Amino acid sequence: MPIEDVLLDLKQKIEKNLPAGVTITDVEFEGPQLVLYTEEPRKFADDGNIIRNLAKELRTRIAMRPDPRVLATPEDSISIIEEVVPKESVISSYYFDPDSGEVIIEAEKPGLVIGKHGATLREITKQIGWIPKVVRTPPIKSRTVKNIREFMRNNLKERKEILKTVGRKIHRECTSKDQWVRVTALGGCKEVGRSCFLLSTPESRILIDCGVNVGSDENMTPFLYVPEVFPLNQIDAVIVTHAHLDHQGLVPLLFKYGYEGPVYCTPPTRDLMVLLQLDYIDVAAKEGKKIPYESGMVAKTLKHTIPLDYEEVTDIAPDIKLTFHNAGHILGSAISHFHIGDGLHNVVFTGDYKYEKTRLFDPAVNKFPRVETVISEATYGNSNAFQPALKDAERHLQMVVKNTVERGGIALIPAFAVGRSQEVMIVLEESIRKGIIPEIPVYLDGMIWEATAIHATHPEYLNNDLRKLIFQKGQNPFLSECFRPVDSHEARQKIIQNPHPCVILSTSGMMNGGPVMDYFRAFADDPRNTLVFVGYQADGTIGRRIQKGWKEIPMTGKNGSTEILKMNMEVQVVDGFSGHSDRRQLMEYIKRMQPRPERVFTEHGDEKACVDLASSVYKKLKIETRALTNLETVRLL
Amino acid sequence: MPIEDVLLDLKQKIEKNLPAGVTITDVEFEGPQLVLYTEEPRKFADDGNIIRNLAKELRTRIAMRPDPRVLATPEDSISIIEEVVPKESVISSYYFDPDSGEVIIEAEKPGLVIGKHGATLREITKQIGWIPKVVRTPPIKSRTVKNIREFMRNNLKERKEILKTVGRKIHRECTSKDQWVRVTALGGCKEVGRSCFLLSTPESRILIDCGVNVGSDENMTPFLYVPEVFPLNQIDAVIVTHAHLDHQGLVPLLFKYGYEGPVYCTPPTRDLMVLLQLDYIDVAAKEGKKIPYESGMVAKTLKHTIPLDYEEVTDIAPDIKLTFHNAGHILGSAISHFHIGDGLHNVVFTGDYKYEKTRLFDPAVNKFPRVETVISEATYGNSNAFQPALKDAERHLQMVVKNTVERGGIALIPAFAVGRSQEVMIVLEESIRKGIIPEIPVYLDGMIWEATAIHATHPEYLNNDLRKLIFQKGQNPFLSECFRPVDSHEARQKIIQNPHPCVILSTSGMMNGGPVMDYFRAFADDPRNTLVFVGYQADGTIGRRIQKGWKEIPMTGKNGSTEILKMNMEVQVVDGFSGHSDRRQLMEYIKRMQPRPERVFTEHGDEKACVDLASSVYKKLKIETRALTNLETVRLL
Ligand SMILES: [Zn+2]
Ligand SMILES: [Zn+2]
Ligand SMILES: [Zn+2]
Ligand SMILES: [Zn+2]
Ligand SMILES: [Zn+2]
Repeated sequence: MPIEDVLLDLKQKIEKNLPAGVTITDVEFEGPQLVLYTEEPRKFADDGNIIRNLAKELRTRIAMRPDPRVLATPEDSISIIEEVVPKESVISSYYFDPDSGEVIIEAEKPGLVIGKHGATLREITKQIGWIPKVVRTPPIKSRTVKNIREFMRNNLKERKEILKTVGRKIHRECTSKDQWVRVTALGGCKEVGRSCFLLSTPESRILIDCGVNVGSDENMTPFLYVPEVFPLNQIDAVIVTHAHLDHQGLVPLLFKYGYEGPVYCTPPTRDLMVLLQLDYIDVAAKEGKKIPYESGMVAKTLKHTIPLDYEEVTDIAPDIKLTFHNAGHILGSAISHFHIGDGLHNVVFTGDYKYEKTRLFDPAVNKFPRVETVISEATYGNSNAFQPALKDAERHLQMVVKNTVERGGIALIPAFAVGRSQEVMIVLEESIRKGIIPEIPVYLDGMIWEATAIHATHPEYLNNDLRKLIFQKGQNPFLSECFRPVDSHEARQKIIQNPHPCVILSTSGMMNGGPVMDYFRAFADDPRNTLVFVGYQADGTIGRRIQKGWKEIPMTGKNGSTEILKMNMEVQVVDGFSGHSDRRQLMEYIKRMQPRPERVFTEHGDEKACVDLASSVYKKLKIETRALTNLETVRLL
Repeated sequence: MPIEDVLLDLKQKIEKNLPAGVTITDVEFEGPQLVLYTEEPRKFADDGNIIRNLAKELRTRIAMRPDPRVLATPEDSISIIEEVVPKESVISSYYFDPDSGEVIIEAEKPGLVIGKHGATLREITKQIGWIPKVVRTPPIKSRTVKNIREFMRNNLKERKEILKTVGRKIHRECTSKDQWVRVTALGGCKEVGRSCFLLSTPESRILIDCGVNVGSDENMTPFLYVPEVFPLNQIDAVIVTHAHLDHQGLVPLLFKYGYEGPVYCTPPTRDLMVLLQLDYIDVAAKEGKKIPYESGMVAKTLKHTIPLDYEEVTDIAPDIKLTFHNAGHILGSAISHFHIGDGLHNVVFTGDYKYEKTRLFDPAVNKFPRVETVISEATYGNSNAFQPALKDAERHLQMVVKNTVERGGIALIPAFAVGRSQEVMIVLEESIRKGIIPEIPVYLDGMIWEATAIHATHPEYLNNDLRKLIFQKGQNPFLSECFRPVDSHEARQKIIQNPHPCVILSTSGMMNGGPVMDYFRAFADDPRNTLVFVGYQADGTIGRRIQKGWKEIPMTGKNGSTEILKMNMEVQVVDGFSGHSDRRQLMEYIKRMQPRPERVFTEHGDEKACVDLASSVYKKLKIETRALTNLETVRLL
């Protein structure tokens, strides 16, 4: 059936289901959702059940678009909204898009604009006709969030066209008589870096992640040139499980090579992704490396990105529904559940996950309506890869910092911008607040502050305890006074020239560049200071050399010459802050999965880790399993 | 390096290696071989070593093309050739192609035209300039062979263009920095029918077989629509292991869907392939089924077919060399050995094979310079799938025929046109010649006689004993007087209306149509007659029902009504004439393979057979193994 007929058919079905007197003028697909055009937005707002019942009846997501002619003027609208909405919501901006009939309201407390079960939103529409969309005013100023919102507002027309194309493609007719499901491994198998998988059926092809291995020139890129994915316009959708570069660093490259389809991820992943992509090409340029894509491709990616919240079941292809679930790994990280055909097969791609409650996140979800195949990460899949408990890691960190500052030293913590930094920040904030360590400043340098601002913009993606603290007690730990962003070269020099007891969290996490090196040069000499490792140090990095006990570190000077740095500062390795499940948690995650999966494939770990985990899953859990190999295709059904 | 530069480079290398005074004017690729153009063909013929040494030096196959201006006239040439060549060779025709400078000589005894180590051929060139190519005059008139030869003569220009394109593609430059080898299963795994595999590297894609499952509407075609192979112009070459329809029935479909490249097979496979393809679409049309391709596509396939003899090492892609070896299954059947990269990896596709010397063929070859991966058929892979010895099968057949004719009856043997028919013919001929059974006529109906004529045209592809019998003793069993082709409806009616003791071999082999049904209707009633099964009877066929003991056979009458046929004739099942290795032979073939392979994959058998064989190979031979699944891709390197 041609798509025009599908739409006509839907329109007739909807008209049959509408209450008497409520009319629509047209229907159209917009990304995964169906949009109703009406001259009567107020009638729809009057009864919240109309849309809900239609969505249930048609088993799809539905939105409503008012006719521009029935809308109040922006001026009138604003004064009405400010009457309807409680002052405490603190609205900071409005953006009216007559084309979609949407008004985007930025507020400090979005919940107050939404109202109970959306009652306030409906009241707004009833009065002004416009459909309000509420976003949070970042409690910490975020350049990234501001730029993204501006960019999206400036590209609404093009965005609408993209969504229409995507929507019509999703709802095209299924034509194949065959039924099969396959997974092709394109990167990230028996290795970490360049994660990339293709999930395919006779109807559809879904790419899951498209990472870059920044540590390798030879194996930097997934195998994107094989016919299973190339030419890239054959791909229906790209899914990004989370914002780490090894999972999304080359998504813009897909657009450079001809991909034109949607990118699905959670809203925080979208924001972090833009931040990390721009930083990635920036750093590469500074290091004189070949840049795989220009910033224009980051913008193009953003234009094609469709954010989906956790637990939102979404059609992404004629025969595939996607649902994201919390993965507990970093902000917005998602377990991706694919429901294929009408009950034909269910595949779960875990991406990176943590099956333990942490300071920031709830443990990864492992309960699904159905699941037959699981593709699981195996970073700590080695049979002896157990990590200390988080509690122990926290105590260790507290002790190290306490000892250091008490002797008048500085605790320098190299860390990635996203993930462990925020975890460590929360621990430090609580330790200071509770008096476990003295009241010292915690300096945040590199991208850490910007990443933290993105965390603060998406509190819904943090765990229960933090949400309660923020929403009910109005106590956002990220806003604590102890945190001091270092936002300029001058600010950094000031700290270096006037050393005083403090903690400095700075990128890069493995000491292969970034502002952490400036601090290290300045503070390595003084035995009162401590260098604290909270994350994994890869072979060949300076971080790893120091961990091994080197006392003289060869460093490239400003003018390119090699100088030797004498190490006198203390070195402490605090294990246990990983965002990955350790061996025990990996096994538990699979063991306690509901329902029990029929088969488990392992990836994202070195060869031994992947094989070890697979063999234990088979031996202990009696589940069919195998460590995947790049470039192979397995048949799931 | 662009291909023009490659050729220039080769030309200079060749000129450096030529003896003083011998010159060439140009070089060009023609399929897998390099062709030298010269005005001095006589000088090249003068020294047989020039070409041989060049081929060794350049590690490629080399042919020579004389300039048209230096050739003798056809009239003069013929009289010179008839002086040079012994009369006993019995030359039946000449064809002069000035474009290639070749003269095709058809002779009853090609060996006499060739001379010892090609001495007579060189003498011809020395005298007339032309390059003689010798083919055998079919000792039994074959419509197929005649048509193929005529067709090729009529399309020499286009053929030359095709070969040039193929040749330039084979010798293109390798560009990928990656090294990997993969096999994708597209059909024939855990099933029999529609055999099809893709062998791929970063540089090349080779399709091995493209069969049809004639017994199934749903699973008739290999998965040709997946991106690994579609669009089909991405394929470098198609290999056909042997002429059975389950291995080559859909090769013309590839051309219909846009393939334009070469098809490699042995010369007898080419001839049988044309016969069976034309018959396949003819039968399908008669049965009112959808015809997958027209006869024009059979012709196009033929135009693109490049015959290769056993043991001829041939470049088929920039990084792949192919060598065919005897498979012992049917005439021209080949074990295909792929040498990938410069010693990177070696894969053997067995196709169907018989690891036992039969009346017609030597046992399948299992000694190779190198082999890491084997993809083996598993038709009789079941742990209990043992077949009676061939000797016992022969004695059983002799006894059945003897008993039948001695009581005045007719032995009716349903059989496939290619394979078992010729095996049974040889046994009957010998039995009659040695007086073990009385001197009765052996009628051959359906395509059996035509297929036999093709066997007689390629005696080089029969086993040692037969070759000796034919070439040294001049005693060709296929030419025996006992064989009587039934070549018309009238001839068949004459036999049916005047029943007399005889053997009738007729298609189809499973009694689902063909002339065998006419004989069956006529002779089923008489208990003196015997129905003799020498091949496998699939479920759902009349043959199978009779084997099961049905005494009343429902048959569709001429007018479409159902009539019941009473079975009074004797039924005998003679096992052991299979062209497939039985379980023991499959295991022995792998066990005795030299060198020992690193891994064995099984295919071409029902699920149990494939899994059983794989598991025994692992348990008894300690070789890594797995039964392949359609649509999966395995990484070999
Ligand atoms: Zn990660
Ligand atoms: Zn990762
Ligand atoms: Zn789910
Ligand atoms: Zn066969
Ligand atoms: Zn076969």
